[in-house]
Amino acid sequence: MKNDAITSRDVDFAKWYTDVVKAAKLCDYSNVKGCMVIEANGYALWEMMQRVLDKMLKESGHQNVYMPLLIPENLLKKEGELVEGFAPEVAWVTYGGAKELEERLCIRPTSETLFSDYYSHVVKSYRDLPIKYNQWCSVVRWEKTTRPFLRSREFLWQEGHTVHATQEEAEEETRLILNLYKKFFEDYLAIPVITGRKTEKEKFAGAEYSLTLEALMYNGVALQSGTSHYFGQKFSRAYDINFANKENKLEYAYQTSWGVTTRMIGALIMVHSDDFGLVLPPKIAPMQVVIVPIGNVFDKVNEVYQALKDSHISVYVDDSKKSPGFKFKEAEVNGIPVRIEIGERDLKKGVYTVARRDTQEKMEVAEDIDIVSYVNQLMDDIQTNLYERAKIRRDAMTYEVQTVEEMSEIVQNHPGFMIADWCGEKQCEESLKDVDGIKSRCILENEKPTHPCVVCGREAKYKVVWGIQY
Amino acid sequence: MKNDAITSRDVDFAKWYTDVVKAAKLCDYSNVKGCMVIEANGYALWEMMQRVLDKMLKESGHQNVYMPLLIPENLLKKEGELVEGFAPEVAWVTYGGAKELEERLCIRPTSETLFSDYYSHVVKSYRDLPIKYNQWCSVVRWEKTTRPFLRSREFLWQEGHTVHATQEEAEEETRLILNLYKKFFEDYLAIPVITGRKTEKEKFAGAEYSLTLEALMYNGVALQSGTSHYFGQKFSRAYDINFANKENKLEYAYQTSWGVTTRMIGALIMVHSDDFGLVLPPKIAPMQVVIVPIGNVFDKVNEVYQALKDSHISVYVDDSKKSPGFKFKEAEVNGIPVRIEIGERDLKKGVYTVARRDTQEKMEVAEDIDIVSYVNQLMDDIQTNLYERAKIRRDAMTYEVQTVEEMSEIVQNHPGFMIADWCGEKQCEESLKDVDGIKSRCILENEKPTHPCVVCGREAKYKVVWGIQY
Repeated sequence: MKNDAITSRDVDFAKWYTDVVKAAKLCDYSNVKGCMVIEANGYALWEMMQRVLDKMLKESGHQNVYMPLLIPENLLKKEGELVEGFAPEVAWVTYGGAKELEERLCIRPTSETLFSDYYSHVVKSYRDLPIKYNQWCSVVRWEKTTRPFLRSREFLWQEGHTVHATQEEAEEETRLILNLYKKFFEDYLAIPVITGRKTEKEKFAGAEYSLTLEALMYNGVALQSGTSHYFGQKFSRAYDINFANKENKLEYAYQTSWGVTTRMIGALIMVHSDDFGLVLPPKIAPMQVVIVPIGNVFDKVNEVYQALKDSHISVYVDDSKKSPGFKFKEAEVNGIPVRIEIGERDLKKGVYTVARRDTQEKMEVAEDIDIVSYVNQLMDDIQTNLYERAKIRRDAMTYEVQTVEEMSEIVQNHPGFMIADWCGEKQCEESLKDVDGIKSRCILENEKPTHPCVVCGREAKYKVVWGIQY
Repeated sequence: MKNDAITSRDVDFAKWYTDVVKAAKLCDYSNVKGCMVIEANGYALWEMMQRVLDKMLKESGHQNVYMPLLIPENLLKKEGELVEGFAPEVAWVTYGGAKELEERLCIRPTSETLFSDYYSHVVKSYRDLPIKYNQWCSVVRWEKTTRPFLRSREFLWQEGHTVHATQEEAEEETRLILNLYKKFFEDYLAIPVITGRKTEKEKFAGAEYSLTLEALMYNGVALQSGTSHYFGQKFSRAYDINFANKENKLEYAYQTSWGVTTRMIGALIMVHSDDFGLVLPPKIAPMQVVIVPIGNVFDKVNEVYQALKDSHISVYVDDSKKSPGFKFKEAEVNGIPVRIEIGERDLKKGVYTVARRDTQEKMEVAEDIDIVSYVNQLMDDIQTNLYERAKIRRDAMTYEVQTVEEMSEIVQNHPGFMIADWCGEKQCEESLKDVDGIKSRCILENEKPTHPCVVCGREAKYKVVWGIQY
């Protein structure tokens, strides 16, 4: 059923996106410019993501902590590159009550400074290491243009900050997290991602290098979906985090940081959803099944509901006073993966209906079917189908290119990921941005260049994924 | 084993408190005056509290959302009493990057204003009601004197904000939450609480009335531990939250708000802990059991560990290279409710040892005991014992008084809860504060006064609990 509240995504993708966000009640604009109200449906999705990721992080030896929201200006300034990167976009607190502060405080745009300051107090010996902390919180960056979930002045995220005794161990951690994120994106969000290393220009301010996950949206625009940074000793030198190593010599520690944000909700929408509203992978859907009763079918509805609930499938019965058609539409907008319609007339014929959200296919099933197995199997199918569908589309929109003209043509007509070799010079990278807004997404680390630099024609050093981005 | 890092609580209670906080690694001072770093042990405790409370809230029909961190000054000012109450203690953001803001924004000290603004957009008909939202977040209040967990410039909490179509329903919600909190305190935190209504002087700025939970700490000082406010139509009038009622007439909605904070961690410490460190009720302990192996006992340790783990008891083996004595002490400081010591020599005699943290009693058990049942039973005993111990102490420190002189004597020598009748006049209430810092804790709603006002001797209207407070 076409949803009138939602513009077609092939007609106006940007409008479609905000329509879906609004129709599915994920977030609302707030009275504070650039900040959003994350509504109950949106927050439930974030809670599902948190639950899965938090478990993965704890199982890999990470613990949660909570650092202050505010950072004194002097503390922020200790690491030069970081402050340069963030200073233009932080919010400054200058008054506490009626009193002007002696030193202004910024609201954390990220917490490397606070973690490093804390680590400088608690790290003393190699025996204290590694320390693998994470925090769930909100951060503020004073962005000029904002878009729900994708870019806003305040967003929610997790930020991991670890300290290690050796470079090797810290680099391993950086990759462990990259792979953990990749698994989360592919197995739970059903979003295929390309992983690689950011160029010097695109890396995180203050990092030795940044690893990234890059996803492709339905419209061919790339979305940086998560990053994992290796800091080496940059912060430990700036914040004086040293420890007595096994030889009892003082050494600066090795650090990492990494994070994913509520932006993932935006990615979910722009990869899977359609003109009928939200489409959610069953593994991350806060509500997996809705049962719509039609007529006097109380016993059967209750039986199916109990069976699913007892098997830990999240399910609810929509017994509101709306029409069945309205309920179907609402379940579609909200992206409930499986809808079960139990009708009085159908039951008399010994059947009822199961509908899947991803393909909108309706299946008639015998009323004595083992509904738990059926739904579990169906949810597996949906999860796989969403991933495959996204991957096929992503692959079809990934182009190997050898000239700037090709790149230009692609970006202007049918954007996507463009793979092209690059000499490694910043000016070549910047020239692409100037022409069509093309940015490097990541360097493919395990692949060797096979052609000259796509811009200057000199010898290439890297095979790089390029694209236009959110 | 006496812990040298911890001052005796009977010698210097304030010092004992900060010593326990530090020794158990619950929180650390930060570089931001008045803000704390909640360390891994402290945050794990907060996560346990969140998990239990969040489940209770969801089961009673509440959903989580997330409102912005920042509130425009004009929005804050719409409800006069609220702004009067909070304006002296909010932190003001005046710059975004290098640019001065046109309107300054405060960091939320509480979010009535944001929720009300949101509700004014989404509430249209009685069919939209009730809306029962909650959020988990941090808030900032620019306090002058601070103390870890008890009073800090930033703290974590949950704040519930609900809207209802009738006064009756909103008042029911206010009490439902009070009882839910009471159940949480008594059943999980093992802390007995007195519930009642705040006086006009002590109620929340902007509320029609405030209900409160009051707990008594080991030293006889009272701690306001949670509050539930009934707003009537105060905010709905200020923020224009109206709806078409069943008669299709526009009516202002009825609201509530309620919250508990990381202060609960402070309460846990000050009610249960001792000179050896933290003492935690098993139901809220992030780690319930520690196994300390002594000698070559790998098989038995593994068997016990697996059995407990399989029964969803949280357990870890301390196989670090420290001495057993050091491990015992560490487990004590951290408040692990049950310690299992498995020694090579003991095992040869067919026994091992189980120690309970609350009484520090050690029990020898047969090595073929059903350890899961034993530990479950023991944890139930500990949970009950902690509650009973706290209740007996609280009751022994609760005094019925009839003169100001008695109150003075109690506060100066052996503080506690003081029950005394009161005429209801603000000046009588304030005179007690002026003399000995005594404040009303709450009005006992179901009890009638039996004596004249303790201050002025005129006819009393209320039976009131008084005390000195954190």
